[in-house]
Amino acid sequence: MADKRRLAPDALLAEKVAQAVALLSETRSDAWLTFTQEMGEGGDPTYPFLMGERDLGNGFLLLTRVGERIAVVGRLDAALPASTGVWDTVIIHDGDPQRVLRELLARLDPAQIALNYSTTNYKADGLSYGKYLWLREALAGTPWLERLVSGDVLVSRLRARKTPAEIELIRGALDATYEILAALQAWLRPGRTGIEIHRFMLDETARRGLQPSWSADHCPVVTIGPVPAMGHTPPAELPLLPGQVLQLDYGVRRKGYCSDIQRMWYCPTPGETSIPVELQRLFDTIQCGIRAAAAELRPGVPTWRPAAAAHRVLTDAGYPEPIYGVGHQLGRATHDGGAGLIRRLEPGQPESYIESDSVYTVEGLETLAPGRGWVSQEEDVLVTAEGPLMLSKPQSGFWLVGS
Amino acid sequence: MADKRRLAPDALLAEKVAQAVALLSETRSDAWLTFTQEMGEGGDPTYPFLMGERDLGNGFLLLTRVGERIAVVGRLDAALPASTGVWDTVIIHDGDPQRVLRELLARLDPAQIALNYSTTNYKADGLSYGKYLWLREALAGTPWLERLVSGDVLVSRLRARKTPAEIELIRGALDATYEILAALQAWLRPGRTGIEIHRFMLDETARRGLQPSWSADHCPVVTIGPVPAMGHTPPAELPLLPGQVLQLDYGVRRKGYCSDIQRMWYCPTPGETSIPVELQRLFDTIQCGIRAAAAELRPGVPTWRPAAAAHRVLTDAGYPEPIYGVGHQLGRATHDGGAGLIRRLEPGQPESYIESDSVYTVEGLETLAPGRGWVSQEEDVLVTAEGPLMLSKPQSGFWLVGS
Repeated sequence: MADKRRLAPDALLAEKVAQAVALLSETRSDAWLTFTQEMGEGGDPTYPFLMGERDLGNGFLLLTRVGERIAVVGRLDAALPASTGVWDTVIIHDGDPQRVLRELLARLDPAQIALNYSTTNYKADGLSYGKYLWLREALAGTPWLERLVSGDVLVSRLRARKTPAEIELIRGALDATYEILAALQAWLRPGRTGIEIHRFMLDETARRGLQPSWSADHCPVVTIGPVPAMGHTPPAELPLLPGQVLQLDYGVRRKGYCSDIQRMWYCPTPGETSIPVELQRLFDTIQCGIRAAAAELRPGVPTWRPAAAAHRVLTDAGYPEPIYGVGHQLGRATHDGGAGLIRRLEPGQPESYIESDSVYTVEGLETLAPGRGWVSQEEDVLVTAEGPLMLSKPQSGFWLVGS
Repeated sequence: MADKRRLAPDALLAEKVAQAVALLSETRSDAWLTFTQEMGEGGDPTYPFLMGERDLGNGFLLLTRVGERIAVVGRLDAALPASTGVWDTVIIHDGDPQRVLRELLARLDPAQIALNYSTTNYKADGLSYGKYLWLREALAGTPWLERLVSGDVLVSRLRARKTPAEIELIRGALDATYEILAALQAWLRPGRTGIEIHRFMLDETARRGLQPSWSADHCPVVTIGPVPAMGHTPPAELPLLPGQVLQLDYGVRRKGYCSDIQRMWYCPTPGETSIPVELQRLFDTIQCGIRAAAAELRPGVPTWRPAAAAHRVLTDAGYPEPIYGVGHQLGRATHDGGAGLIRRLEPGQPESYIESDSVYTVEGLETLAPGRGWVSQEEDVLVTAEGPLMLSKPQSGFWLVGS
C-alpha cells in the first residue's frame, strides 16, 4: 500500500533528529557536531537528515544526548533553523563561529564529541579535512580537542534505520518508477536501440521533475541481447531484435529518496506465443534466488547469508555461481552506505548483521541466456521485526515487447 | 548571443582537464590527487570537473604536470573513464587502491602532491577526513607522506576561470531562466501570494527537467511589498497588492551550471499609467550602482572596488550605504567559492584581485521604497581581458503586473 498523503518535510526532520538524539545515548556520545556549508553541490551527505533542503551557510549544528538542538548560523540564515520546528536554539555567530563553539562546549562539557568521519562507511564521512583543521584551530589549548571521536556508528545507524516517513518516501519513488516503466512499455517496439531507450527514460524522468537515482549516463543501465557483460556502462547503439531480452536497471530520486529495481522484457519472434522454455526456466530460477535472499532479511542475520542462500539456488539448478554479493542499502542514495549483502566471509573476517528498519536491494544474480540476453531482477525489501517486507512489486514474469 | 549548439559533455571535460594540467605548472605542483566515491549525494565538489556525471566508485584520479591522466577504478567501472575521451590511462585496482597508489607514486616521484583541502575556500575542500586518514595509512613509511600539500589555489583557479564551454552553459541556464520568468509574467496577477508565486516557479522549473539554483525552499526568494527585511527566507502568505513591488531572486541549474538574477515588478493601482516618481528614481539609482560595480570587473582590480563604486552611487543619491558586498562567483554552484566582491578592506587586510574569465553576480544594493517594497537587481557578468561582458540581459525598467 502506498500512502499518498503529502508529507510535510518537517515530519521527516522531526523523526530523524529524534532518532539521532536516541542514537547519542545508544552510542554513548554526549554531543554530535555537524558543520553546515551551502550544500548546492558536494558537501556532507548527513546534513539533509538534520536540515532537509534548508541550506545554511557557514556554521554548525550541535545535538546533545539530553536533547538540546542547537543551530549556529550567520545572520542572513537566522530564520531558517526554527522554520523546521526541530531546531529550538538558534545562535547567530556574527562571523566568529569558533568563539561560539568554545562557549557552547564550555557550558555542555561533553565527554565525547562525535564527528562525521569514517574510514569504513563513506556515507558517514562528510567532514572535510579543511573543516577538521578549522576545528583543531578552534579548540587549540582546550580540553575538547582530545574528545573528538568518529561518529561513524551513529551516522551509519541513522542512515540505515528508516523511519515511517522515509519508508513512505521510498514507496513514493517506487510508484514514480512504475509509472515511467508503464510509459516505456507503451512506447517500446522491436528495433529501438539502447541509446533511444536510455534517452526516453531520462526524458520521462526529467519531465516529471524527478532525477535518475544514479548518474544519468547509466541510469537506466540498458542491456540488449547477449552482449559480453553487464556493468556500469553507457547504452549502446544496438537495436532490440526479436528473440532477445531487454534488461533495465533503473530508479528515480524523488523528494530526496531513491528507488532501484531491475526489470526484463522479451521481444517475441513473429508468431511466437510463449517464452522460450530455457529462458523461462532461467527467469524462474533467478526469481527463486531473489526470494531466497529476501527471506534471509531478518534482524540479527549475518549479512553474508542472503547471498549464500541465493547463490545456492542458482548452483543447485546448474547455473554458474555469481561473483558478487546480492544487494546494498537504499535510501537517500542508491548505494546508501553501511553493511551490504556480501558474499560468504573468509574465516576470521568480522561479521556484520542485518538490522530492523533497514532497506536493501536484492539483486546480483544476473546470468546470460545464450543467444537471448541477460536475465537479472532486482527488488527493494524492508527489514521488519517480523521479517522481510517487499517494498517493490516483484516482477513475476517477462514483460513482452509489443510489435 | 546564446549559442544553441549542443555540447558533447566531453568537450567540457577536455577543456577542464587540460586547464588543470596547465594549473599544475602554474602552481608548481607535480601531481594532483582526487578521490572518487559515488557522487549521488554529497562528496567532493571538484569531481564533476574531472569526470562529469560519470560516477565512479571507490578509487582515485591522478593528474600530473607532464599531462598523465590516470584513473584508478574498480572492475565494474572499467569502461567509464575512457568513455570521456580524456582519461587515457585506466588501472583496475581490484580492491587494493592503496597498493596501486604507492606503485604510481614510486614511478612518478612527485615533489608535491596537491590534495583537495582548504581552510579558506570550501569549494576547494572536498577531501573528507576519513579519506585523508586512509591516505596517511596508504603512505605510511613512504617519502610521499611528507609531500602532501593543499591544492586550494589550483582548485580555486580551476573553478574561477571559466572555459568557453562553461560560459555557454551559464548562458544556457540564463536562457532557461528568462523562459520561466516569461511564463510567470503571463500568469502573474494582483492578489497572488508569495507562496503561490514560489510554487509556480518551482513547478515551471521542475517540468522543464531543471533544478533551482539553490535550495528549493527559498528559490526563488519572493519579496512582496515593504516587509521588514529581505534575506534567505521562505515565501509568505502575503498577497501582492496594487501599488506594491514584487521582487524575485531566482536562478536555475541546467546541465550542472547555474544562473542567478534578481528582477522586479510593479503592480499598478487602477488607472495608474506610469511608475511612481520616487520608485522610478530608486530603480534608476540601483541600476546605476549595478553598472558602476560591473564596470570595475576588470582583471587585476582589487575585489573591493566594485562594492566601493556601487555604494558611492547610492550614497551620492542620498540613500543609505548597503552593509554587504556586491556579488559572488557563479558556476557549478550559485555561490561558487573563491574571492567575492567584498566591501572595502580595513587597513592591513590582504587584497585579492579580479581574474580574467571569472563570472560574478552583481547585486547587493537592495533598498526599501517606503510603502512599496524592496528594489533590488542582480546581473551576471563575465570578466574578459577587454573588460566586463554582461551575460544576463540587464533589466532596464520595472516589469508591470497585468490585471
